[in-house]
Amino acid sequence: MRIIDNLQYANWSEKIFRQMRAGGVDAVHVTIAYHENFRETVLNFEQWNRWFETYPDLIMKGLTAEDVDRARASNRTAIFFGFQNPSPIEDDIGLVEIVHSLGARFMQLSYNNQSLLATGCYEAEDSGITRMGRQVIGEMNRVGLVVDMSHSADRSTIEAAEISTRPITITHANPYEWQPALRNKRPEVIKAVTEAGGMIGFSLYPHHLKDKSACTLESFCQMIAEAAARYGAQHLGLGSDLCQDQPDRVVEWMRVGRWSKAIDYGEGSASAPGFPPMPSWFQDNRDFGNIAEGLRKIGMSELEVAGIMGENWYRFYQENFGAKA
Amino acid sequence: MRIIDNLQYANWSEKIFRQMRAGGVDAVHVTIAYHENFRETVLNFEQWNRWFETYPDLIMKGLTAEDVDRARASNRTAIFFGFQNPSPIEDDIGLVEIVHSLGARFMQLSYNNQSLLATGCYEAEDSGITRMGRQVIGEMNRVGLVVDMSHSADRSTIEAAEISTRPITITHANPYEWQPALRNKRPEVIKAVTEAGGMIGFSLYPHHLKDKSACTLESFCQMIAEAAARYGAQHLGLGSDLCQDQPDRVVEWMRVGRWSKAIDYGEGSASAPGFPPMPSWFQDNRDFGNIAEGLRKIGMSELEVAGIMGENWYRFYQENFGAKA
Repeated sequence: MRIIDNLQYANWSEKIFRQMRAGGVDAVHVTIAYHENFRETVLNFEQWNRWFETYPDLIMKGLTAEDVDRARASNRTAIFFGFQNPSPIEDDIGLVEIVHSLGARFMQLSYNNQSLLATGCYEAEDSGITRMGRQVIGEMNRVGLVVDMSHSADRSTIEAAEISTRPITITHANPYEWQPALRNKRPEVIKAVTEAGGMIGFSLYPHHLKDKSACTLESFCQMIAEAAARYGAQHLGLGSDLCQDQPDRVVEWMRVGRWSKAIDYGEGSASAPGFPPMPSWFQDNRDFGNIAEGLRKIGMSELEVAGIMGENWYRFYQENFGAKA
Repeated sequence: MRIIDNLQYANWSEKIFRQMRAGGVDAVHVTIAYHENFRETVLNFEQWNRWFETYPDLIMKGLTAEDVDRARASNRTAIFFGFQNPSPIEDDIGLVEIVHSLGARFMQLSYNNQSLLATGCYEAEDSGITRMGRQVIGEMNRVGLVVDMSHSADRSTIEAAEISTRPITITHANPYEWQPALRNKRPEVIKAVTEAGGMIGFSLYPHHLKDKSACTLESFCQMIAEAAARYGAQHLGLGSDLCQDQPDRVVEWMRVGRWSKAIDYGEGSASAPGFPPMPSWFQDNRDFGNIAEGLRKIGMSELEVAGIMGENWYRFYQENFGAKA
């Protein structure tokens, strides 16, 4: 059984890479841009190149699904890159292929706010996919850069699923009915994405969990089982949103970047501005076994468990990371 | 017999791509930066991506020697990218791997002037490879970006051949004794490059030819035969420096970029500032057959001719475009 976590943004270190190995994690999709422009994002690619050079026995760059198997065969974790914001492509559609050549495999069309491409989930009005957004979706489809709508608004997400000729994703979020967080997704949104062949990755960020940090493993797994019944287990995976070891200034960068002089607390608050503690049963990369065990305990089949733990993302990688046939 | 031209900078058009096909040219190393910084060079990569998309039946992006065969098998020309100046990596060694990921396969350490890495051939003093130059050569060796010293000064070139742990190149120049142009190379320089396993590509830029535009095919081929006897035929290839259809403002950009407010005529002069006419027997990509025929006529073996027309570059590509073993 392959284990793939389709969203992390940890404060990367040898310790964390060793925890990936200890947890048997075959692949991780890591965020390398929140608000960075193109040149700043290139610096983040460079930083990862240094990590690949420094820790060649622990991690390797992932470009294709086959790299997951190469990593597995050599006892390493394949790292796939993604952006939570289209800021790295600036206003230049030609940068879509450029960042794909550099290894980007997922890009969110917006991050909380309105972008050049789509509306973010924190805006009061959702005007849907923009003129440039339609062009960029087409270009992303052409080269094999996957549309991610995790932080986008509902109408924009549904329109993206319609416009895109290849499956799109919500890499990290949970159903809104289970935990009514602004970032969690309503049924019609999840339906639009999964019915078009797309995937949703379930988040372990406490603000996205029922009872937040106190969420039980059983409740999390029950939520997944219900989603499987409703949307089809083959469309489900994990996107833990693990932000391990990050200082609070990083959550502030995520929330306000350079776009505001005022503080915005996002899903936090003035009294709890930082990263909330993770649930006891998912502290870091060594704990994926707990989730697999939890899914088995509530009665999911071994095939469904394997799909959710990584096989579904693996198949999605196989079909969506290359140029359009 | 594979035909590879290891340096062109034409004013690219469908006409020229069709001429490549008419001439049976399997691969061309094209210059995509003279003085461009990183972001400007990315725009040039983008422009090529558009051409690959627009002319998929004529050209394809080349990254490995195998791409030459893929191009051949599909009746296309593989395009390999190079820089005539290290300006695209600015002062950032991490950009070496980034530009390699984007497809760059050759980079000159200097272009006529002193650079951050090495001295150019027009400087009065040649201080050799710089501190950063040593680091960058190591990084180029690591990732498989080939050192090109075509426009560098002699001491810098000889030092680069010594410092580099992989073969280096002079992609486009001729022997100085044959035509004493500032850009042509003295025996000790060619020797340093070829004895370290490197290659020299012979130029057809008229300022590099004996009798310039009036140079005869026989004289050009005789020069190659003498170089073969002196340095070994396996180290020789073509790097035509074809600048077809370029307006004169382009040669001005090559010569002064943004570094001077005064005009510098390079190998031209105030009375002849533009591109000189090409020799009658090499007007464009359709004329490589003339060179092969000329080499046969002066008595070179079919094996030597094939090597010079492309097989030597092909073997060099096989050994030098990948990460260090």
